[in-house]
Amino acid sequence: MADGSEAKRPKGVQVEDRKVNWRRWKQERKAEKKKWKELNLLKKLEKQRVRELAEKQAEEEQQQQEEEDKGRHYTLSVALPGSILNNAQSLELRTYLAGQIARACAIFCVDEIVVFDEHGEDAKYLRKSFFPKHGDLQFAGLLNPLDSPHHMRVDEDSEYREGVVLDRPSKPGRGSFVNCGMKKEVQIDKQLKPGLRVTVRLQEPQNPETKVRKGTVVSSHHPRTVSGLYWGYSVRLASCLSAVFSECPFKEGYDVSIGTSERGNSVDQVTLPSFRHMLVVFGGLQGLEAGVDADPNLEVTDPSVLFDFYLNTCPSQGSRTIRTEEALLISLSALRPHIDEAVKTPTDS
Amino acid sequence: MADGSEAKRPKGVQVEDRKVNWRRWKQERKAEKKKWKELNLLKKLEKQRVRELAEKQAEEEQQQQEEEDKGRHYTLSVALPGSILNNAQSLELRTYLAGQIARACAIFCVDEIVVFDEHGEDAKYLRKSFFPKHGDLQFAGLLNPLDSPHHMRVDEDSEYREGVVLDRPSKPGRGSFVNCGMKKEVQIDKQLKPGLRVTVRLQEPQNPETKVRKGTVVSSHHPRTVSGLYWGYSVRLASCLSAVFSECPFKEGYDVSIGTSERGNSVDQVTLPSFRHMLVVFGGLQGLEAGVDADPNLEVTDPSVLFDFYLNTCPSQGSRTIRTEEALLISLSALRPHIDEAVKTPTDS
Ligand SMILES: C[S@@+](CC[C@H](N)C(=O)[O-])C[C@H]1O[C@@H](n2cnc3c(N)ncnc32)[C@H](O)[C@@H]1O
Ligand SMILES: C[S@@+](CC[C@H](N)C(=O)[O-])C[C@H]1O[C@@H](n2cnc3c(N)ncnc32)[C@H](O)[C@@H]1O
Repeated sequence: MADGSEAKRPKGVQVEDRKVNWRRWKQERKAEKKKWKELNLLKKLEKQRVRELAEKQAEEEQQQQEEEDKGRHYTLSVALPGSILNNAQSLELRTYLAGQIARACAIFCVDEIVVFDEHGEDAKYLRKSFFPKHGDLQFAGLLNPLDSPHHMRVDEDSEYREGVVLDRPSKPGRGSFVNCGMKKEVQIDKQLKPGLRVTVRLQEPQNPETKVRKGTVVSSHHPRTVSGLYWGYSVRLASCLSAVFSECPFKEGYDVSIGTSERGNSVDQVTLPSFRHMLVVFGGLQGLEAGVDADPNLEVTDPSVLFDFYLNTCPSQGSRTIRTEEALLISLSALRPHIDEAVKTPTDS
Repeated sequence: MADGSEAKRPKGVQVEDRKVNWRRWKQERKAEKKKWKELNLLKKLEKQRVRELAEKQAEEEQQQQEEEDKGRHYTLSVALPGSILNNAQSLELRTYLAGQIARACAIFCVDEIVVFDEHGEDAKYLRKSFFPKHGDLQFAGLLNPLDSPHHMRVDEDSEYREGVVLDRPSKPGRGSFVNCGMKKEVQIDKQLKPGLRVTVRLQEPQNPETKVRKGTVVSSHHPRTVSGLYWGYSVRLASCLSAVFSECPFKEGYDVSIGTSERGNSVDQVTLPSFRHMLVVFGGLQGLEAGVDADPNLEVTDPSVLFDFYLNTCPSQGSRTIRTEEALLISLSALRPHIDEAVKTPTDS
């Protein structure tokens, strides 16, 4: 009986258990379902959190990148014939003209000026004009200042400065002293030959009391490529028009070249491609035709075939001819929005 | 009986007549119908002919109008402070600077130059520079020629010419003789006072052998409004910045005004409305702020409120400041495509 009862009990228990189980099972299922729902929700929330995190991270990364990549990754070169200085009627006006060209190039952040020889050897003169040094030019004082960021005033705060290595001994293992046109001299990270011209990236002064500032020597294009600063132009002489292209200092060459002429296509319709090194070429009194004619390396007579684009940058001009120094400002101003548009899209290469 | 037969005949006749008439009537109706149809057709054809004629005429008229309306129906005025000449370091360079401004305006077909007084009475000097006459300016010979269409060379063929009325008697009923800088003198359609400056529209020479050309005196804006030719600028002095606006020579006033400043909005984003008389204003060494400060009629300190648009025409300039003579070429070049776009759409008024 006990067995029976025992057997019963279990049965009863079983029944009861089953009943209980059924209830429990239902409760458990309910709980499970709830848990599962919660888990699902958690998973969803987690997914969302991860997504949001990723988005935020991407955003931050982009922001950081944007903040970091302040650099300008393209260059603009301008070529013009040295002969244009011959049109000036006095040494004073010739100096002034050279200054006009220098200023136009500084205003539009030109990185390289190429002076090509059109028919004589006058290019040397222009070179001198672009490096006005005491004694070289009687009227250099008349030049309007370029006022580019690399021409600092003595008290100006700047990340970079141009300087000249001083002939002053420094302790072994320490770098040379450089005059950067500030009240304090700058000790750089290297020993360099006195007299050398260098671009220095200045460190934040640790202690305002110290007599010297610390700095690192960088390449002269560092301010442009890393910090997006305009750091002036270099000047190069080319013995003829074709040498403007063949002696390009960039190993990839100029990837977009523009010839300018009143007989070119209207600049308004042009769409410039993305580029690394752009070259814009101007003619002298006789236009680019003169440069083509005088060049022993060029078989062509029509200058337009030398360039990717041949552009009229001043459609419906009210004066019969535009002088090269005027065309420089006009053309660079007309090209600027087209260049800005072109460099927005990143290069394929 | 005779009456009866007579009465009958007519009856018979009447019957016959009626029969005949019926047939005739039918024939007549047919003929009438045919005629009516023909008439209808003729009318239709006539209508079509008239329509075609009208269309052809309209087409021709439009073509003619298009051919005839070569005129430019808007004007461009430029205002700048006379003080800018003070920055030049010598009389030679001051003359050259005035020439630069004159040339910039000629290149961009400026119709009016307004020289305003910023703080002194130097504007008179600039006026003289814009009218270089023998003796007035020691260095006027240094000025680069304007080379606008109204500065003709002696053998040039042109529809219009500027000339001076000669002190030479002409037969009663005939017009005065004018020296238009050609080999032949021009006899105009009016008697005018000797010494007067006139714009002459030349007639095609009937006989190449005749000693004089015939011409008609027109207003000086005729070459622009009728033939779309650039005919130079007028010069006006304003005693202060506000007088540039208040003494506008156009009775409707300037309907679009632009102030220029490195602190303006980027020119790249601007959409200019259609206009009749545009004014573009430049500042001197101290910007337009100086002109506002010096003006007793202006309560404001911020120049931007004076203009419909306040524009930076050289975003991301590589030089700290752009000189007014440079800003003139840069701004007019940057504005040109925007102006071209604006005047494409005809004005509402
Ligand atoms: C005095 S212009 C040359 C004029 C020459 N008679 C000719 O027909 O080419 C000097 C230079 O200014 C530039 N230039 C002048 N007018 C231009 C225009 N409308 N568009 C682009 N460049 C222009 C060109 O580089 C030209 O070679
Ligand atoms: C030497 S600047 C004036 C500089 C003055 N320090 C200022 O901040 O305005 C002379 C004139 O050139 C024009 N200008 C200079 N830079 C400009 C720019 N980026 N955009 C438009 N106009 C400019 C303006 O008309 C200006 O008044």
